[in-house]
Amino acid sequence: MMRCTVNRIPSRSPNDVAAMEKAIHEGVIDPQDVVAVLGKTEGNGCVNDFTRGYAVLALKQFFGEYRKESTSSISYVMSGGTEGILSPHFTVISRKGAYNQDSQRQDQHSLAIGVAKTRDFLPEEIGRLAQVDEVAAAVQRAIAEAGIESSADVHFVQIKCPLLTSEGVYDALSSRSQTTVTDDTYKSMGYSRGASALGAAVALGEVERAGLQDTDICDSWQLFSSVASTSAGSELAYCEVIVFGNSDFAEGPYFIDHAVMKDSIDAPALKRLLDIHADAEMVQVMAKAEADPTGFIRGHRHTMLDDSDINHTRHARAVVGGVLASVCGDPMIYVSGGAEHQGPSGGGPVAVVFKRRD
Amino acid sequence: MMRCTVNRIPSRSPNDVAAMEKAIHEGVIDPQDVVAVLGKTEGNGCVNDFTRGYAVLALKQFFGEYRKESTSSISYVMSGGTEGILSPHFTVISRKGAYNQDSQRQDQHSLAIGVAKTRDFLPEEIGRLAQVDEVAAAVQRAIAEAGIESSADVHFVQIKCPLLTSEGVYDALSSRSQTTVTDDTYKSMGYSRGASALGAAVALGEVERAGLQDTDICDSWQLFSSVASTSAGSELAYCEVIVFGNSDFAEGPYFIDHAVMKDSIDAPALKRLLDIHADAEMVQVMAKAEADPTGFIRGHRHTMLDDSDINHTRHARAVVGGVLASVCGDPMIYVSGGAEHQGPSGGGPVAVVFKRRD
Amino acid sequence: MMRCTVNRIPSRSPNDVAAMEKAIHEGVIDPQDVVAVLGKTEGNGCVNDFTRGYAVLALKQFFGEYRKESTSSISYVMSGGTEGILSPHFTVISRKGAYNQDSQRQDQHSLAIGVAKTRDFLPEEIGRLAQVDEVAAAVQRAIAEAGIESSADVHFVQIKCPLLTSEGVYDALSSRSQTTVTDDTYKSMGYSRGASALGAAVALGEVERAGLQDTDICDSWQLFSSVASTSAGSELAYCEVIVFGNSDFAEGPYFIDHAVMKDSIDAPALKRLLDIHADAEMVQVMAKAEADPTGFIRGHRHTMLDDSDINHTRHARAVVGGVLASVCGDPMIYVSGGAEHQGPSGGGPVAVVFKRRD
Amino acid sequence: MMRCTVNRIPSRSPNDVAAMEKAIHEGVIDPQDVVAVLGKTEGNGCVNDFTRGYAVLALKQFFGEYRKESTSSISYVMSGGTEGILSPHFTVISRKGAYNQDSQRQDQHSLAIGVAKTRDFLPEEIGRLAQVDEVAAAVQRAIAEAGIESSADVHFVQIKCPLLTSEGVYDALSSRSQTTVTDDTYKSMGYSRGASALGAAVALGEVERAGLQDTDICDSWQLFSSVASTSAGSELAYCEVIVFGNSDFAEGPYFIDHAVMKDSIDAPALKRLLDIHADAEMVQVMAKAEADPTGFIRGHRHTMLDDSDINHTRHARAVVGGVLASVCGDPMIYVSGGAEHQGPSGGGPVAVVFKRRD
Repeated sequence: MMRCTVNRIPSRSPNDVAAMEKAIHEGVIDPQDVVAVLGKTEGNGCVNDFTRGYAVLALKQFFGEYRKESTSSISYVMSGGTEGILSPHFTVISRKGAYNQDSQRQDQHSLAIGVAKTRDFLPEEIGRLAQVDEVAAAVQRAIAEAGIESSADVHFVQIKCPLLTSEGVYDALSSRSQTTVTDDTYKSMGYSRGASALGAAVALGEVERAGLQDTDICDSWQLFSSVASTSAGSELAYCEVIVFGNSDFAEGPYFIDHAVMKDSIDAPALKRLLDIHADAEMVQVMAKAEADPTGFIRGHRHTMLDDSDINHTRHARAVVGGVLASVCGDPMIYVSGGAEHQGPSGGGPVAVVFKRRD
Repeated sequence: MMRCTVNRIPSRSPNDVAAMEKAIHEGVIDPQDVVAVLGKTEGNGCVNDFTRGYAVLALKQFFGEYRKESTSSISYVMSGGTEGILSPHFTVISRKGAYNQDSQRQDQHSLAIGVAKTRDFLPEEIGRLAQVDEVAAAVQRAIAEAGIESSADVHFVQIKCPLLTSEGVYDALSSRSQTTVTDDTYKSMGYSRGASALGAAVALGEVERAGLQDTDICDSWQLFSSVASTSAGSELAYCEVIVFGNSDFAEGPYFIDHAVMKDSIDAPALKRLLDIHADAEMVQVMAKAEADPTGFIRGHRHTMLDDSDINHTRHARAVVGGVLASVCGDPMIYVSGGAEHQGPSGGGPVAVVFKRRD
Repeated sequence: MMRCTVNRIPSRSPNDVAAMEKAIHEGVIDPQDVVAVLGKTEGNGCVNDFTRGYAVLALKQFFGEYRKESTSSISYVMSGGTEGILSPHFTVISRKGAYNQDSQRQDQHSLAIGVAKTRDFLPEEIGRLAQVDEVAAAVQRAIAEAGIESSADVHFVQIKCPLLTSEGVYDALSSRSQTTVTDDTYKSMGYSRGASALGAAVALGEVERAGLQDTDICDSWQLFSSVASTSAGSELAYCEVIVFGNSDFAEGPYFIDHAVMKDSIDAPALKRLLDIHADAEMVQVMAKAEADPTGFIRGHRHTMLDDSDINHTRHARAVVGGVLASVCGDPMIYVSGGAEHQGPSGGGPVAVVFKRRD
Repeated sequence: MMRCTVNRIPSRSPNDVAAMEKAIHEGVIDPQDVVAVLGKTEGNGCVNDFTRGYAVLALKQFFGEYRKESTSSISYVMSGGTEGILSPHFTVISRKGAYNQDSQRQDQHSLAIGVAKTRDFLPEEIGRLAQVDEVAAAVQRAIAEAGIESSADVHFVQIKCPLLTSEGVYDALSSRSQTTVTDDTYKSMGYSRGASALGAAVALGEVERAGLQDTDICDSWQLFSSVASTSAGSELAYCEVIVFGNSDFAEGPYFIDHAVMKDSIDAPALKRLLDIHADAEMVQVMAKAEADPTGFIRGHRHTMLDDSDINHTRHARAVVGGVLASVCGDPMIYVSGGAEHQGPSGGGPVAVVFKRRD
């Protein structure tokens, strides 16, 4: 029977694994069980953020020592940007056992995790339907692996996706005479996040695939997933998918729930979630942040989109990180920027992993 | 009898006075009564933020047309930096009548405003006791002008203070063989804010002048004012002081109260203030923000102080702006960065102007 | 007969007119003769650069005092960004007399200046053929006004053009159901500069209007003007054109010449120009800078296009400013960023105003 | 007999070793001979630049595979910041054989390299005389190891040194009641570079140790080394020293020479060096860059020191990189920022490694 665990580990720099080592030595984490590491690293979270790759290289080297015989791999999903009070850390997701259709429990749901990958994308596929379709298929594979029976039991779909670099743009054009969806590398991150989120929405039945067009991506904002959280980076060419949900086929004290923030200062969304599960311990908060694309919030102009010194995703993470930390009292949470097709326009999903108290 | 009014006017750029003009034409603001304009402008809030001076130039030109005969001047206090959801705007402070010691009311306190200026400072005086003393005297003059009888009735002391530019540092050394408190221009903003805040603290009896030394400034963090809000800029060489309080000698529906945020995610501080005065309308929130100087918040490391791309005051404004807006529901509030000796270390004062409902 | 003069005036801040006032008092500049002021202000040169508008407001107020009776207006063209060693300043262009077709000189060409404006553009016209055509017509009017007979005698065409703000993008869509060329405000600066440059190229016969399409703008890099220098800003909605050339119908010691930099480190381009006119005094250097859009320079990768902390125009100005100053020995020169369709891709025009020695 | 080689290897990201691997496979580099790698990585070059550590981690892993039996270590000196046209790359320094006092050649000098390390420094030692003294001793050890007989034969001393983080500052105070030289982490980089440079100057006899005080560091700018190049980073707690010189006891076609740039646009300094050795091939240029601390260059104000959006070291690298590349025609050169006590104030050393043609 599947049994999943979530642990938060602080890091003092992108490559710092000292606290991870301590957690392993103390038996809190069993390195053989780790299926995914979701990190917040202290880069700019934009195109030239190498803290994500740095963390992955350090973690691979670290876990490589412990898992020499292991045939499975760990999914590393690093989200750059710890603006404001956000505190750099790793969320370690462990899984013992696997989904077994004969072991259904009647009494309660528990946290179930599934992971999957897409194939590599060509630069010209990024931010287009090809990416939507591949992601949708990968999300479905991950749901199946997790043993989650209903879309309603999926509460967070974390996707790490590629971006365009100026070399990729040039390569598409010169090698294959293909134009990319944009030649602005920072902007390509939004397209890749948007296509990935729509992929999740299609897999979960939130958006219909029929009728969907390339031009809907980063334009038809009424189409979105309430549980997708996508993050772009230059350190991979494919998409990495981690599905978080609850399942009758899983056991243990951990479970997950989610809400939707209607804008970036929607503190009550998280407040209600914590109130509903007031008898459980909060283990980790995971949320998406974005600058409202209209340039206005609650009727007032904001300046995030016209700021040529600081990109708007950085502003948005600082705001949402502060707002959520003021509700839950903890700044070591996962807040990722750029919520294209992830929750309603200007808002975003917020999920909480809880642990039942005995 | 003194009667004070506070109005918030949105701006679409630092020099935009269209909404101000509309408010005057509609009779909401009488230009002859304006004593101070407190602005949030959309610059970086640091050394090379020229949006503050730009707004002052545009406002002086604008009000100059209306007040050709006026012998009094308006205090312009511009705070740069509208990171995150903060919305650029002007807070217009108007005052009819003046303090008259024979007109004490028995029934209620109302908002009372006093303004004062110091002399110009030499670069080498900035961030040192000379500034503390001049500010303390100016705060006392402003309190007297407002007719506020007790320090307990002072709820916000806004001070605009100068900073060091590399020219000023060079001038002190080459012309007068004097070294300045620092030769780092960004850092000089902190010293100037800190000395100004201690000046307010001395005036209000929060800190004793005896025993205070130059080296306490930006070092002895246990010394602070719970109501000072100081903001540095290159557009002036003196300090401009605006005292907000309540007085028996003032009339009208406006009044003010304040609380102290213990850190930058202390949402309950504002929540309690709004709850206490739930029967009144919230007119404006004014607060200070800072990155905790220990590098930690609630036991977790933050990265604001080691970020060489974005100065920590910018991070802090984004956080506190988001947190306060999530409580009061309004992003067009006054949040200023750098809270040295303004509230406890890592936290800061938050004041709210209210209007009694009929 | 027309007689043009060019003076450089340092500024200590965007609004500083002290040196300008001194130059007027000393008789170096006659305020009645000023037709244009070309400035380098110390902002980021991008979307939210308010130093340009600040300088214009201060200069208008300043010259307004001197020219109360004047019916003509001064063209203010501010280019933001003094990265690296570039020194903030104003280039003041004065003109006595006017073009008179009966006063042709046989002995020598002298500097001739013409100015013109387009109408205001709607957001959806920016970066498209509508802008190209209006600019082309304005350049022709300016050439005619200057009395320049041949396109070969035009050596620099400075154009200040508008940009898209997020409000403009939203307005086009919501009010007129029109999409703008891009909804990325920083990127709109490139489109506006590109369309303006192609307008100059059409006017000068460097590019044929027939066959030109919207999609050529910021894409068909082989189309360019060798003398256009265009600069985008949020402080205007129309284009302001200043044509610099030599004319038989002008007199005085000033003249102009230009060269083309093939890339941003092409120091020899300026070196040759100075050598040709070694007997004349260099008065001012005016040039355009850009990051090579291929991501490579001289076969080596550069990182300017993938930098999410500093926009590429800022990098490019720092480089070209340094390179040109190392040749001419003077950092108070005019270097503007973003050379779309201005000189060959990756390079840009460089013009020098000279003064014949007696 | 010692035989040293210098090779430049491009990198497509901080962790990219593909071109390095190719050079090894093609026999251009023998991994067993590598003594040092000097890199330019594409971070901000300031406090939170993790590209330096990322490159070191990737290179250690890479060379670790090739040098499993090796008892010696490679010195990794990464300098962050490739502003403007600078192209990210590694300079690989290889050495076969060692200094042997019996093998002096009469005919010619050749490139000789020596490396050494100091002990770890406590935060409170950084930027003070303790660092000067340890570096001076390490430079002398490296000179001895290289077999360089005279200080005049030393042409470049590259030193990688630590910086203060906010944790280090806090630790010094809380654990040992010691104050650090500054509590501004960006500024600590300058102090560490300055102390290291004075250490080299003392070792080379350019500055007398007697009379030197803590307060001279980053203040007495007339004290400097003409060949020191120091670079601070958070990835080490000690200093790493690489001495480049010529020696009678070395062989091979490589040699080195240097000049001093008097300011950041002093192109002739490099021009003269290339002219003197016009018959040799230029292999690599290594230089230091800084914003003139007076705030002026060639009599004109620059804005680098008052820029709160981009740190001055970033501006300076963009300028000096552009200027030197415009002279040597190659943007893949080593230009490092912050030249405190390295060359005259506002200027800096520039060294060139040459290869004699057969």
